[in-house]
Amino acid sequence: MLVALLPGDGIGPEIIAATMRVLEAAGVSGLTFEQAPVGGAAYKAKGHPLPPETLDLAKRADAILFGAVGDPNCDALDRHLRPEQAILGLRKELELFANLRPAKLFPELADASALRPEVATAIDLVIVRETNGDVYFGEKGHRKTADGLREGYDVMSYNEAEVARIARVGFETARARRGKLCSVDKANVLETSQLWRDVVIEVSADYPDIELSHMYVDNAAMQLVRNPGQFDVIVTGNLFGDILSDQASMCAGSIGMLPSATLNSANKGLFEPIHGSAPDIAGQDKANPLATVLSAAMMLRYSLGKPDDADRIEAAVAKALANGARSADLGGAMGTVAMGDAVIAAL
Amino acid sequence: MLVALLPGDGIGPEIIAATMRVLEAAGVSGLTFEQAPVGGAAYKAKGHPLPPETLDLAKRADAILFGAVGDPNCDALDRHLRPEQAILGLRKELELFANLRPAKLFPELADASALRPEVATAIDLVIVRETNGDVYFGEKGHRKTADGLREGYDVMSYNEAEVARIARVGFETARARRGKLCSVDKANVLETSQLWRDVVIEVSADYPDIELSHMYVDNAAMQLVRNPGQFDVIVTGNLFGDILSDQASMCAGSIGMLPSATLNSANKGLFEPIHGSAPDIAGQDKANPLATVLSAAMMLRYSLGKPDDADRIEAAVAKALANGARSADLGGAMGTVAMGDAVIAAL
Ligand SMILES: CC(C)[C@H](C(=O)O)[C@@H](O)C(=O)O
Ligand SMILES: CC(C)[C@H](C(=O)O)[C@@H](O)C(=O)O
Repeated sequence: MLVALLPGDGIGPEIIAATMRVLEAAGVSGLTFEQAPVGGAAYKAKGHPLPPETLDLAKRADAILFGAVGDPNCDALDRHLRPEQAILGLRKELELFANLRPAKLFPELADASALRPEVATAIDLVIVRETNGDVYFGEKGHRKTADGLREGYDVMSYNEAEVARIARVGFETARARRGKLCSVDKANVLETSQLWRDVVIEVSADYPDIELSHMYVDNAAMQLVRNPGQFDVIVTGNLFGDILSDQASMCAGSIGMLPSATLNSANKGLFEPIHGSAPDIAGQDKANPLATVLSAAMMLRYSLGKPDDADRIEAAVAKALANGARSADLGGAMGTVAMGDAVIAAL
Repeated sequence: MLVALLPGDGIGPEIIAATMRVLEAAGVSGLTFEQAPVGGAAYKAKGHPLPPETLDLAKRADAILFGAVGDPNCDALDRHLRPEQAILGLRKELELFANLRPAKLFPELADASALRPEVATAIDLVIVRETNGDVYFGEKGHRKTADGLREGYDVMSYNEAEVARIARVGFETARARRGKLCSVDKANVLETSQLWRDVVIEVSADYPDIELSHMYVDNAAMQLVRNPGQFDVIVTGNLFGDILSDQASMCAGSIGMLPSATLNSANKGLFEPIHGSAPDIAGQDKANPLATVLSAAMMLRYSLGKPDDADRIEAAVAKALANGARSADLGGAMGTVAMGDAVIAAL
């Protein structure tokens, strides 16, 4: 099976390198890797954040292991040339519409959360975020008002097919867990949300075993602080999911620990840590590679049919933490390479 | 000076009654009060959540003291008849465009926050939220896609005049505090945000003394959990402000403690607790009235030119808490009336 390796910018190459060493030490069989540039690195090398060769590799591959994109030197570029467009382009071109972000605190890291330990350790949820629609991909631009004022606009929308397919991922995810699905919207203000809510309710007819609830996004942002333990699976749109999943990650401790998967309908996926490219510490052997290692484990489980290898790697991460492995974000002093070594030793 | 009293639904009448007793005990002079129905209560009495008489009173008044709206029995009504439309209608009709939400933990209540005490006590910020534009008030509706699918849509937009006037409120608010303004947007994806950011930067030329920064909304949601003490004033649009201000409130402890003001350009305002109508405890003398009492203090300060009375009431609330006054949301057993009495005793 072919894995596309897209290290990207900033700390991307380091954390991918550490992850590759872990995969090798774990002796995962039958994988071949092919690498390509993406993000700011690709813009510098080829003039585009998602060059045709990179997109082509991503399409041919069975799964994509992604580092991070983002480069402050690219901030002044036209929007379509900025590093972030690579991740938006991959999601759209490959129809990767279901972004899964588990948020769970490793008990060893209870001290790393800003929440009280008893609140933080209760977190065990998955956010299922739609990533092919919403205000991200609608018509957008600048125009003049009737009075000649500059105006920026973006059209938010969802159609019933888009909502139904992500709702099904939400229900299925809940079925494999504790059976509770909370759909988050802003139906008291937005027509897009009203359609979202209507369709989620229609789809729920096929999942009588799942306990469905609805919550407004402002309330959800509050509840994720007040009592995150109440959630099992949250399903929501692209924009609300962007905000809530970052918030939930932080509730669950260091952002250096959390993986994500973005899947298409055939379970082909892009796997990446939820953190960014951290240009301030790039190339200094300071970044925590564990979110990327855990993303690789998700890849083995979701896209490559190797759940046993995934389990082994996840267990090794837990053991390394129990043995005291701590990078700077976790209050320790170990570097990227040493953190990778700690996982390898635990394997 | 005329104050429009709009108690609304659920716990609204109780918390307004307690607040009126505090205002009376404080001996605030020169105020007359006129009451009118709003929200679900107004729909039941007059067939509309914001009847013409209520809107007229709100227009005539120098300030509006508002309880809460929201009634589960109205959920099935057409959108334009639901209780929430009253608050959206008042904001729009009276051009109340600047929603100010201070979030600060009373030190006595450090135990009521889900955040670690050392993180929670560092919170001392104001969110300045725009409330006349954004995806709230753009064109919206349901339509069919080319394939005949149902689709919901909402147009997000801001023009330069709308952004400039709320930016000025943000800069002025920062100037009266610690001099730091953080503008929150999603300029890496949204053109509305790009215009927002451009205009905020233009306006900043008039405020060289203010330290301006920009943050993406997903990162802001994270930072409000990780290190809320870093913020002084946050300025943002209607939708992001809705989410972040509820989140920030919860970080600062009980939602039963936090007031808000929504002002027009002449500092006429609507003052309301940030919590909702809490239908589950309505009429049971259980609700905490302090957020409404503190909203009345904001009213005295911002719209009625009585900062000394505002200070006295705020000090009495702090003293009542120091004396041990605790309603159920604060882990105590005191009712609405008793909490009001505790503030009156402290005056
Ligand atoms: C980089 C950005 C465009 C992206 C998004 O908003 O989707 C990121 O925040 C994410 O969540 O993956
Ligand atoms: C009731 C609702 C329409 C309103 C809003 O979204 O603005 C509320 O959440 C608020 O923040 O005042």
